Amino acid sequence: MVSVAPGDIICAPASGRGGAISILRISGSGCLSVVDSVVKFRNGSASECPGFRVKFGVVHELDEVLVSVFRSPHSYTGEDMAEISCHASPYIVESLLDRLCAAGARMAHAGEFTQRAFVAGKMDLSQAEAVADLIAADSAASHKLAFSQLRGAYSLKLKELRAQILELSALLELELDFSEEDVEFADRGKFRKLALDALAEVERLADSFRLGNAFKRGIPVAIVGAVNSGKSTLLNALLGEERALVSDIPGTTRDTVEEVLVLGGVAYRFIDTAGLREGAETIERMGIERSIAQIGQASVVVALLDSTADTKEHLSVVSAIKAHLQKDTKVIWVKSKSDLVSGSRKGCFDPQEMVSGTSGITDGAFCSRLGISKAIELSALTGQGLDELCDAISSADADLLKASEGVLVTNQRHHDALRSAASDLRSFLSGLDSGLPTDLLAEHIRSATATLGAIFGEVTHSEVSGMIFSRFCIGK
Amino acid sequence: MVSVAPGDIICAPASGRGGAISILRISGSGCLSVVDSVVKFRNGSASECPGFRVKFGVVHELDEVLVSVFRSPHSYTGEDMAEISCHASPYIVESLLDRLCAAGARMAHAGEFTQRAFVAGKMDLSQAEAVADLIAADSAASHKLAFSQLRGAYSLKLKELRAQILELSALLELELDFSEEDVEFADRGKFRKLALDALAEVERLADSFRLGNAFKRGIPVAIVGAVNSGKSTLLNALLGEERALVSDIPGTTRDTVEEVLVLGGVAYRFIDTAGLREGAETIERMGIERSIAQIGQASVVVALLDSTADTKEHLSVVSAIKAHLQKDTKVIWVKSKSDLVSGSRKGCFDPQEMVSGTSGITDGAFCSRLGISKAIELSALTGQGLDELCDAISSADADLLKASEGVLVTNQRHHDALRSAASDLRSFLSGLDSGLPTDLLAEHIRSATATLGAIFGEVTHSEVSGMIFSRFCIGK
Repeated sequence: MVSVAPGDIICAPASGRGGAISILRISGSGCLSVVDSVVKFRNGSASECPGFRVKFGVVHELDEVLVSVFRSPHSYTGEDMAEISCHASPYIVESLLDRLCAAGARMAHAGEFTQRAFVAGKMDLSQAEAVADLIAADSAASHKLAFSQLRGAYSLKLKELRAQILELSALLELELDFSEEDVEFADRGKFRKLALDALAEVERLADSFRLGNAFKRGIPVAIVGAVNSGKSTLLNALLGEERALVSDIPGTTRDTVEEVLVLGGVAYRFIDTAGLREGAETIERMGIERSIAQIGQASVVVALLDSTADTKEHLSVVSAIKAHLQKDTKVIWVKSKSDLVSGSRKGCFDPQEMVSGTSGITDGAFCSRLGISKAIELSALTGQGLDELCDAISSADADLLKASEGVLVTNQRHHDALRSAASDLRSFLSGLDSGLPTDLLAEHIRSATATLGAIFGEVTHSEVSGMIFSRFCIGK
Repeated sequence: MVSVAPGDIICAPASGRGGAISILRISGSGCLSVVDSVVKFRNGSASECPGFRVKFGVVHELDEVLVSVFRSPHSYTGEDMAEISCHASPYIVESLLDRLCAAGARMAHAGEFTQRAFVAGKMDLSQAEAVADLIAADSAASHKLAFSQLRGAYSLKLKELRAQILELSALLELELDFSEEDVEFADRGKFRKLALDALAEVERLADSFRLGNAFKRGIPVAIVGAVNSGKSTLLNALLGEERALVSDIPGTTRDTVEEVLVLGGVAYRFIDTAGLREGAETIERMGIERSIAQIGQASVVVALLDSTADTKEHLSVVSAIKAHLQKDTKVIWVKSKSDLVSGSRKGCFDPQEMVSGTSGITDGAFCSRLGISKAIELSALTGQGLDELCDAISSADADLLKASEGVLVTNQRHHDALRSAASDLRSFLSGLDSGLPTDLLAEHIRSATATLGAIFGEVTHSEVSGMIFSRFCIGK
């Protein structure tokens, strides 16, 4: 636990720069006296003011301010607190902070207000982390996850899980208490059942990290296909729809520029890939390494099959993509450039057949020939099929998010802890099989409960929480 | 006057982007019901809440917020108002504004909150303008002017002035009422005295615009001197002192880059000029046109005289500068590169004399030879003389600001009005001399009082105030 020195009064700007008004926060026992020495109120003082009141005051030759007073323990930090609303000039904000510091406060470190809230028991560690995520959330999905975590849904889930494992632990402890009598109280089969249930739940949560992290950072969608299959045209068409929501994110893994697009409240990172090139017989391996890597990393692959190309090209694209898909990657097959295929020949997508004069094939035949279940007919030029494509991209993930009820792991620290707990549970199970003594079995379970407890801060080291709070912005 | 439609509820973000928390404002009759339909409170409602109270509430699946409630007329706008403090994510801010608008509010225009405060009589027009200036103020001096104006000192001064002129007006009206009796009630000498006093005051205020505007925008300081006299070195030395307070401002009048430096709370725009070049006998006119222009426009001219140059060069620089100084421009003479003159020869600044072996001359002799009163000995290299130079730059203006007690004209609109009023008063005085009939004399006085009244908004057109408020940021 982090200790707070009594009388340690912290202050910081809490709102962003610019705008019409700025908010400064001050917290700590005695902070209202500091406010009183800086702000002159028309009547009364902040120190004598009850909580949840606003007072109008004047800061000598600087500004007219509104001061909101909060009294311990009914404040964000659990301490006496005030929020000072002043005019949003950097000069005023800096001068006001100077005066508060001269009167006995000090500048807060990043995240120090929330750290105090955690220390005071106003929120657990995962809720505190959610505050930072909430502020950073830029789509409905990432916001929903952070808000649900802030409201405690996530902690509740973890606590249930931990209670399950504690039950196991209690049974083991009971056996240990009577170990000299060499009695096995509990049925080993019951131990196994409890541990397997807990392990399944821990693994489900750990696995949710990939989705949770994707929701938080934006779900990676790779647009792949042969050269000239219409990838860039598709990307432009997608962005043209909601350009206002688009932002440039320089890729971290390579020089590609990703474009973020919010569909149905979920942020997607659309990644333009190098075109898959066709060699004499097979697609050249050399030129498509990067695209292959994107296929392996994406959550969704939009695979373009050029309507004007021939079946041979389609087959090589399909096999190249299928060879590199992760098991849980969603692939959406798209027949691009549908506007270039004549109206009367709709449903026929093999120009060679068109040229050779054979009759048009049906969608079903097209798909079954390539060994795929369905393909969306798309013209980026006319917009035909774009909505269907967007729906296909967003539907599965939106459903997953809904089903998860916001309990998805979005945090690397939590993910690591869950994997560590899963490993403990597996060790417990194998120990059970190999007839490990009860005291050694109990050690694995203790480790698992401690690891899970650390997620919401029941057992934590000051270094860990220091690291967590330093991620925050100043004033939070 | 601008009319506000009843029930017209406006909302806007009031704080800047970023930070930990954001503030949204909502104002207008019925706005607290709008808040109630968006925020669920633990107990009670905003509508039933007294003013100057803070309530904790939850916005469904969006955020936990604090709502500060203000009741008409005790609010910024004079209407019922609320300030909602939420987490500072753009997603939350936008969603919250969407919900407030869906519940009956609309987005506010720039400055609309302050415009309502003006309409409700919470502040006069010059105070409203001071709000925008206060937010934009970036030095102690510009802040002090804006704050004093916000607190009404400036309006008070103008109202006193207007009362003076109204006294004149009242005397004239009295005479007009009895005009058929052909009586002259007041002594024409008294009229003259009152008008002259008012004119002097109006002119003093109008003249203060140059200083006031300089305080607001930064006082222009031109560094001039011969080529290689150490101008750039001096600029770098000045900026090196307080580099954190330096910002680049691309010049508007020409391509020069100005550097702003805050000295003693006043912002100075240091302008680097082209070196004055020396021809055969006199300084060439061609190469120094731009520097000459800067000399004419600056409030302060720092004139460098190279310690290693000869008297002839000094004399031509001095005469070139003196020829173009405005009457109220302050010039500071500086003997640069003092480090290059040997210690034993300090006080001797004519290297030709040094070379020719004549004895060193005193500072007094140096100055009297050039016809200047004082020169600061400066070495930008060692820092010698820099403090003295800074003190010299800031002293005069700081004294002026202090003496003005914050009543300086900083606003072009006010300056124009004062000049127009001065013109009316001059017309009155010349009319008095030429025996103009009383009714025509009164017209000039009526015009002067109306013009002055417009400054604080007693008589104003909606176009004028619309123009003023559109300069504000949204949320103010």
